[in-house]
Amino acid sequence: MKNNVKNLSYIFNPKSIAVIGASQIEEKVGGVVLRNLINGNYQGRIIPINPKYEQILGLKCFSKISEIKDPIDCAVICTPAETVPGIVKECASSGVKGILVLTGGFAEVGNREAELEMRRIAEENSIALIGPNCLGVLDPASGVDSIFLPMNKLQRPTKGTTSFITQSGAVGASVMDMVAHYGVGVSRFISYGNGTSLNEIDLLEFLEEDKETKQIILYIEGTKDGKRFLEVLKRVNKKKPIVILKAGKGEKSSKAAFSHTGNLAGNYLAYHAAFNQAKIIEADDLEELFDFIKIFSQPLPKSSAIGVITDGGGLGILAADAIEDNGLQIATFSEKTNKLIRAVIPKYANVNNPLDIIADASPELYKQTIEIMMNSPEVGALVIIVLFQVPAINDLIIPVLKKAALDKRKPIAVVAVGGLYVSKLRKELEKEKIPTYGSPKYAVLALKKLFNYSRFKGVLK
Amino acid sequence: MKNNVKNLSYIFNPKSIAVIGASQIEEKVGGVVLRNLINGNYQGRIIPINPKYEQILGLKCFSKISEIKDPIDCAVICTPAETVPGIVKECASSGVKGILVLTGGFAEVGNREAELEMRRIAEENSIALIGPNCLGVLDPASGVDSIFLPMNKLQRPTKGTTSFITQSGAVGASVMDMVAHYGVGVSRFISYGNGTSLNEIDLLEFLEEDKETKQIILYIEGTKDGKRFLEVLKRVNKKKPIVILKAGKGEKSSKAAFSHTGNLAGNYLAYHAAFNQAKIIEADDLEELFDFIKIFSQPLPKSSAIGVITDGGGLGILAADAIEDNGLQIATFSEKTNKLIRAVIPKYANVNNPLDIIADASPELYKQTIEIMMNSPEVGALVIIVLFQVPAINDLIIPVLKKAALDKRKPIAVVAVGGLYVSKLRKELEKEKIPTYGSPKYAVLALKKLFNYSRFKGVLK
Repeated sequence: MKNNVKNLSYIFNPKSIAVIGASQIEEKVGGVVLRNLINGNYQGRIIPINPKYEQILGLKCFSKISEIKDPIDCAVICTPAETVPGIVKECASSGVKGILVLTGGFAEVGNREAELEMRRIAEENSIALIGPNCLGVLDPASGVDSIFLPMNKLQRPTKGTTSFITQSGAVGASVMDMVAHYGVGVSRFISYGNGTSLNEIDLLEFLEEDKETKQIILYIEGTKDGKRFLEVLKRVNKKKPIVILKAGKGEKSSKAAFSHTGNLAGNYLAYHAAFNQAKIIEADDLEELFDFIKIFSQPLPKSSAIGVITDGGGLGILAADAIEDNGLQIATFSEKTNKLIRAVIPKYANVNNPLDIIADASPELYKQTIEIMMNSPEVGALVIIVLFQVPAINDLIIPVLKKAALDKRKPIAVVAVGGLYVSKLRKELEKEKIPTYGSPKYAVLALKKLFNYSRFKGVLK
Repeated sequence: MKNNVKNLSYIFNPKSIAVIGASQIEEKVGGVVLRNLINGNYQGRIIPINPKYEQILGLKCFSKISEIKDPIDCAVICTPAETVPGIVKECASSGVKGILVLTGGFAEVGNREAELEMRRIAEENSIALIGPNCLGVLDPASGVDSIFLPMNKLQRPTKGTTSFITQSGAVGASVMDMVAHYGVGVSRFISYGNGTSLNEIDLLEFLEEDKETKQIILYIEGTKDGKRFLEVLKRVNKKKPIVILKAGKGEKSSKAAFSHTGNLAGNYLAYHAAFNQAKIIEADDLEELFDFIKIFSQPLPKSSAIGVITDGGGLGILAADAIEDNGLQIATFSEKTNKLIRAVIPKYANVNNPLDIIADASPELYKQTIEIMMNSPEVGALVIIVLFQVPAINDLIIPVLKKAALDKRKPIAVVAVGGLYVSKLRKELEKEKIPTYGSPKYAVLALKKLFNYSRFKGVLK
């Protein structure tokens, strides 16, 4: 691994962060970033830099980075484009190890020279430089947060095991907001924009070795080095599952991608073929990114027949439709399993798969039927649908689902459809690493990806 | 229209409702229904009926319906299955006009006789009978609410123009909860379960004439009369757009459907062909039901080329991908349009479609670019993507989007991706009848359905 890539650790765990272009004004980029660092859980030293101020929010403000005597691990640059190459040079002279350039107005509008200049300086000095034209980094564990969107508008996720690399800041931020709302955790979030020095390939190589990262999500419009991208994807995906959303697939959208980050989106068919070759999991939309990745907290299935438990008949039928529609298999229960189920369900319920345990099913009945399916060799994975809104379901359902998720013999996916009450419950469940889905279809699609990966890893024959 | 169908008006607007099987116990079906009627906005007389109590929650309780001297418009029955035919008979003798049988345990478990008996009594007396094995009705305008799921767990939507017929209570209730969370309104909600007397066909005929209903959603597993179903669909869909989710499409799921409501799901290909013939809009998942229907608050497009405005580049590219992937057209701006856009956007932004007006775009810039596209003959419909979380977007965006939604020259679809903050904003927008979507793809899929319907109606050539 190149030294500049290694130095990313100074970005994720810096002892000190300089905010160059820090502002007293709350709405400015340098104002939001400074506030988010101060109000978040970052424990290191925060140094605002701006010649206009003597202090901001009680912190001493320096006019330039060279004024600071102590070594600075990380600098966040949010000054106008024309000043950026000069500031990167100053950072290099001051021994800064990692730089996030948030400012836009470079290759994406034809200004290539400035970008090449900052890249040259960074690489000569082994600086890990992310950007320009990006949101930078969020690390919920260390509290590093250069996302210039205010915390009252954009929720931050808690610490998790999935790292998320994104070429688009808007896509990255809005997806993080979405998953934070459902309590899904994130390890490292990196919005790398134009990817001038460090790009998606370097970031993948860093995450490959990163102990805090167990799964990887990538939103990409285009890569500059298709051959190396494929090699790295192949290698990393064997160790840590990767879910990719490739944007700029069509003729016009590919043109739009170019004017977005200055990267050629290229021919989608070539990307698709490469992803297939590397057995990468492809997502087709924003919600699928985390929907797919979070199923990987579950064990890889050894058999691909699915058992479905539900307290809402129609939701079970929709699960069955999704299973058959996706070429997956609905488990056929053995005589023994049928008998065990018959013994616990009410006499007016039918023994079928999907198993409809009826709207008055208790958490205890969920526990019993889950246990039966966990023990049934004909079931390889479970979809557990809970209509949480019925009177019969109370808080006792949470330990039941938690036990099933930690059972580790078979993967489970929990389906919870609804509004505010359900979203709060999903948050509680996700915090316990229980993958939850907003409809039976999404749960089935996620399991499909898990089956494919399990086959790739040789666990599922 | 048959008299029993006409009498549905007594269910949606009753002067009095008897809850037969009303309970002091909060968790019982008759306990929840009674509480929801009392605590909701129903203004008529509520009469609990249960021989066990003298009064419940301050209301005088009768032991049977024949004890009440005044005429009763509507009865909700939630007593055990074996008592139901007898109670329906009593209701008939007492002159009740509409009955909701919530109780299950009939045809879906092989108990056909009791069902035929209640149907016979209802039809001989022109009673509008819904059920059994269902959630009954919700009418946000009149406050009738027989959904036996507590209000603190399941949100109720506000009054809207879409009526929703569902064979599955669980599907119906959880989808209502979902859309209520986003502020989407509902006119009549009807969960009809086994559909013994009134079924989906009768309900469609009622809604066809219903002034409060402008659009219709139908969740169905199977119909008993395919020929009449198709005829009615054809006729009604011409007047009011219908979105259908057909469940029980596969072999196993079709079997599950039978044991759910006792209706044969039948061959999906036959349904699909019928829907195609009637130009019905098919949904493939729960979220699509309202995603598709709510675009119909917008005018039918006269041309099918889409203009996209975004303040987040990546989200625009995803919109372009969805447009091309769905065989739709991205509008090519004329020289004149290009010039008008160039005059209002910052110089570091590019004139393209999707039009990326950059993350610091103000509500004013949205207003200007929307107006340009509304005036451009080459644009037939607008996708407006707003990254609401950026500092530059404030409350002024709401009147801008409202103006665009009320413009009525071209349909618009607003995209808002995110978490809690965004869901609150979406609620505000939906209340103003602005259709909002959780990702660019969903907005494009909804527009596709609108284009198809517009073509069917001859507006789009």
